[in-house]
Amino acid sequence: MALKIYHMIINDLAIQAKQASIQLSALNTEIKNKALINIAKSLDKNRERIISKNKTDLETSEKNNIGFPLLKRLKFNDDKINTVIKGIQSLVDLPDPVGKTISAIELDKNLELYKVSCPIGVTGVIFESRPDALVQISTLCLKSGNAVLLKGGSEASNTNKILTEIIAESTKDAGIPEGWIQLLETRSDVDEMLKLDEYIDLVIPRGSNEFVKYIMDNSNIPVLGHAEGICHVYIDDEADIEMAIEVAVDSKIEYVAVCNAAETILIHKNIAAQVLTGLKQKLDEYKVEIFGCAQTQKIINVSAATEESWKTEYLDYKVSVKIVSDLNEAIDHINTYGSGHTDTIITSNTIAANKFLNLVDSGNVFWNCSTRFSDGFRYGLGAEVGISTNKIHARGPVGLEGLLIYKWLLKGNGQTVKEYSANNKSFIHKKLEKDFNL
Amino acid sequence: MALKIYHMIINDLAIQAKQASIQLSALNTEIKNKALINIAKSLDKNRERIISKNKTDLETSEKNNIGFPLLKRLKFNDDKINTVIKGIQSLVDLPDPVGKTISAIELDKNLELYKVSCPIGVTGVIFESRPDALVQISTLCLKSGNAVLLKGGSEASNTNKILTEIIAESTKDAGIPEGWIQLLETRSDVDEMLKLDEYIDLVIPRGSNEFVKYIMDNSNIPVLGHAEGICHVYIDDEADIEMAIEVAVDSKIEYVAVCNAAETILIHKNIAAQVLTGLKQKLDEYKVEIFGCAQTQKIINVSAATEESWKTEYLDYKVSVKIVSDLNEAIDHINTYGSGHTDTIITSNTIAANKFLNLVDSGNVFWNCSTRFSDGFRYGLGAEVGISTNKIHARGPVGLEGLLIYKWLLKGNGQTVKEYSANNKSFIHKKLEKDFNL
Repeated sequence: MALKIYHMIINDLAIQAKQASIQLSALNTEIKNKALINIAKSLDKNRERIISKNKTDLETSEKNNIGFPLLKRLKFNDDKINTVIKGIQSLVDLPDPVGKTISAIELDKNLELYKVSCPIGVTGVIFESRPDALVQISTLCLKSGNAVLLKGGSEASNTNKILTEIIAESTKDAGIPEGWIQLLETRSDVDEMLKLDEYIDLVIPRGSNEFVKYIMDNSNIPVLGHAEGICHVYIDDEADIEMAIEVAVDSKIEYVAVCNAAETILIHKNIAAQVLTGLKQKLDEYKVEIFGCAQTQKIINVSAATEESWKTEYLDYKVSVKIVSDLNEAIDHINTYGSGHTDTIITSNTIAANKFLNLVDSGNVFWNCSTRFSDGFRYGLGAEVGISTNKIHARGPVGLEGLLIYKWLLKGNGQTVKEYSANNKSFIHKKLEKDFNL
Repeated sequence: MALKIYHMIINDLAIQAKQASIQLSALNTEIKNKALINIAKSLDKNRERIISKNKTDLETSEKNNIGFPLLKRLKFNDDKINTVIKGIQSLVDLPDPVGKTISAIELDKNLELYKVSCPIGVTGVIFESRPDALVQISTLCLKSGNAVLLKGGSEASNTNKILTEIIAESTKDAGIPEGWIQLLETRSDVDEMLKLDEYIDLVIPRGSNEFVKYIMDNSNIPVLGHAEGICHVYIDDEADIEMAIEVAVDSKIEYVAVCNAAETILIHKNIAAQVLTGLKQKLDEYKVEIFGCAQTQKIINVSAATEESWKTEYLDYKVSVKIVSDLNEAIDHINTYGSGHTDTIITSNTIAANKFLNLVDSGNVFWNCSTRFSDGFRYGLGAEVGISTNKIHARGPVGLEGLLIYKWLLKGNGQTVKEYSANNKSFIHKKLEKDFNL
């Protein structure tokens, strides 16, 4: 019985969010920006309350001996509050992405068709233990007119609760419909949410790969995200060797725990002997363990790679190395074992580069630069909603535009289809150079 | 054991299609257009073979007493061959949608990021018993660089087989990789296909609603389509009554068996008495059975609507009618019971129209015109891949662009992220006005 009541609750939160999303989709820019400014002001005013709740979270986590990197991400101090406030201010300055006319066409005299951007509706976002992510995600949703159900890392539960309260209150004051932001508190809340495809339009999971996979397998709601980041550096036989080593090392070790770090280095056989010695020397400096194919092992002294090595996302100071006989083998290897995330070729041969960029079926394909550039901030997208390895909707780093879709609006003066079917009238389909306006 | 071998076969077809799709994605416009022209020529040359196979299908269907409308759609005669050939010629004339630069940005000197359109990859299309649909869909996929697994209505199996053979052969001669087009033959083939999310990127089901729902519930592959078309006409109190009746009748009866036909008419209470008598008179001419709410029944003599009526897609000469107390109730009703397909408001009040267009959460929202305009041909999109009630990727009538996504291509000269993390370099994020080119 208790369980049933509990189910009802998540269902109700989703219904509230759905209702709010309809109103939110039609709010004008001024109201949304005023609400964003209110959030910033309120965060500033409530620093003490926020930091004190965050201390509770930090103390519990310390007692539970969670590691230093997680503690560092969990900490929400004055500096981090300043950063999120700054982020909100940049978001206010961005143009409203909603209501933009994507195309306009005159179907016939006084019958005008407009394709106009609009919010997706209700999103469910599951994110890691950084309280700043809660503020970033919810303000991105607000600016793009979407309602949001949030679930953050449990370590941050007190901080997330106070932040959600502050955001809900300060946006209500600005005229944003209540219920647009909802905080889920447990993993079983998430399980309930995943069933609510009637009310929730998109789920964006950020976090561990297993969890993202679990979500993809357990919901009918479309998922925007990536389960794995098995990224490759391919060093072609016409590569500048020094550049190749620099880029491969950067791709591997600049930040090993992230999805756009390289996990496999592929090397053309003609250049392998020259590359491998220098590469190993550099990787040794960073204590990177190398798993090499049989050919690689003939040149440098490293552990043996297995079939499993090509499928492994280490997220660690480990890397797989394979010698390939040509560019085609490299492309095939990437399309077979890669995760469609980010892959780079190092070559001075434009034809080879072009072939690689065309045939590697990944969201981000690079030439002569590090895989680590694959990131919303580096791409200049502003804040990032997530990184997607989907093949539809949005691919690669996804900014605000990933939270948008469009509507077709048709404005007539009494036209019926009968007149066109009977050939009394015919369509002119003339492109219009104007924005939607009634 | 036999079953296991069978499973292998569909899996193998999908792998072949995936491999072909990689090559196909990089083919230049000339080769794709040459292949399209070859298809048209080959269809023209093989008219007799095609028509003879189609006769076999027609005879079997006649024996099985399938109805006249289905027989008419199944028939593939000289006229229909001419029409598909004409369609292919228009497709040749269309610009190549692949390889278009969507945006270009200079991240830093000699570090240029391009967002470039590319095919989705492998699509699975399930379509009705019209052999012309097979030609249209496969040529749309070819032009957009996608491989395709096709499953048509079983009544057309002989016609579909010969058409697929002709298309496969004539495209092979033009240099298109083999395996890009595959014909599935049974419903259990489709079930197998739905499991292959590793190789298939998008499923487009066209056909009965139950079947589309079944697919949406039984696959991890993204689905582009619509399960229902519960479309509404709302007659506002400031409507021109004559126009309102014309548009409502057209929306209902111009073609009752299609998804964009109206199923419910909502009428503002202030105008109900005036509208209902005239509306009933017109609907009576077409023998449309009306299911009215209690208020409606007080004004005209009609059957009683139940809660179920508002959720019913009749696809028949039947309609639900409800009197609402205001615009808000109309919008709420549509967002509650509608299927997000197509809804129209009849009013001379611009503010009411604007509110309706903003707040009705459907792919197609109209003002003063028939719901029946919601169609790829009428929208001027060229051939239509399908109609989508999705909230992501593509919405409403979907043309070629629904088969496309994009890649991020980054062109550097040895840049590493380390240099930017260490603040030695910073991003400039300058918009470039040029197309991708190596």
